[in-house]
Amino acid sequence: MATLDAADALARLAGADHGVLATVHPARGPDLVPCVFAVDGDGLVGIPVDRVKAKRSTRLQRERNLELDARATLLVEHWDPDDWTRLWWVRASLRHVGEPPAERLHALADLLTERHVQYRDQHHDYHFDHLIVLRLVEVTGWSAS
Amino acid sequence: MATLDAADALARLAGADHGVLATVHPARGPDLVPCVFAVDGDGLVGIPVDRVKAKRSTRLQRERNLELDARATLLVEHWDPDDWTRLWWVRASLRHVGEPPAERLHALADLLTERHVQYRDQHHDYHFDHLIVLRLVEVTGWSAS
Repeated sequence: MATLDAADALARLAGADHGVLATVHPARGPDLVPCVFAVDGDGLVGIPVDRVKAKRSTRLQRERNLELDARATLLVEHWDPDDWTRLWWVRASLRHVGEPPAERLHALADLLTERHVQYRDQHHDYHFDHLIVLRLVEVTGWSAS
Repeated sequence: MATLDAADALARLAGADHGVLATVHPARGPDLVPCVFAVDGDGLVGIPVDRVKAKRSTRLQRERNLELDARATLLVEHWDPDDWTRLWWVRASLRHVGEPPAERLHALADLLTERHVQYRDQHHDYHFDHLIVLRLVEVTGWSAS
């Protein structure tokens, strides 16, 4: 088990196709959910909240949690059931921040759209309602080999 | 997005080859780490702490966190980057419990050994030092389709 250097860990984070986001629920503790995300060059992470036509509100539990406790963590991992020497993971400590300037928000949205055909191609019919924006506090990573 | 019924969610949890464990660090909030695990028929989850020869202690941060806050969460997920309609995930709320009776601990260890060739086959040279044992409080699951 070796620690990844910071640049390597950040590159693996930015290149991952999805991760697991954890926020803190006041009663039950860590709330985990898989998510896609985008990382910009200045340490902001944008996580889309998809528009769901059936729901009146798209305000999610993770957003309610972040109002009460701004701390969040995002984990990305490479798993190989047959060869544990190939495992690696990167853990990003995050803080929820208020609405960033519009141009940074647009840039994060553009990154997400570029990255995921589901948001780009009308055929897929996925749209995000808004982004949860968090600031990277620390990025650490480990590799099994 | 549909909620999975409890039996289906539990079966998917027990059948998963690994998950992401979250514990609460007093300062930085959720600590996440990928892990393997075993679920017995009576709601106990065993998570192995591997023996690492290079380290003097195999006491891990997740164990120190659980001493201060017994709440933990385990997420298993099926991800498909190309087809988001095939996604599902299961989230188990857990509580750290003291050492269970030896026969239950041995049964959990046997489940892990049966499940993962890495613990079974001398060639792989993985061994666990001890198990972290948690009790299932609630299991919820969602499927995108």
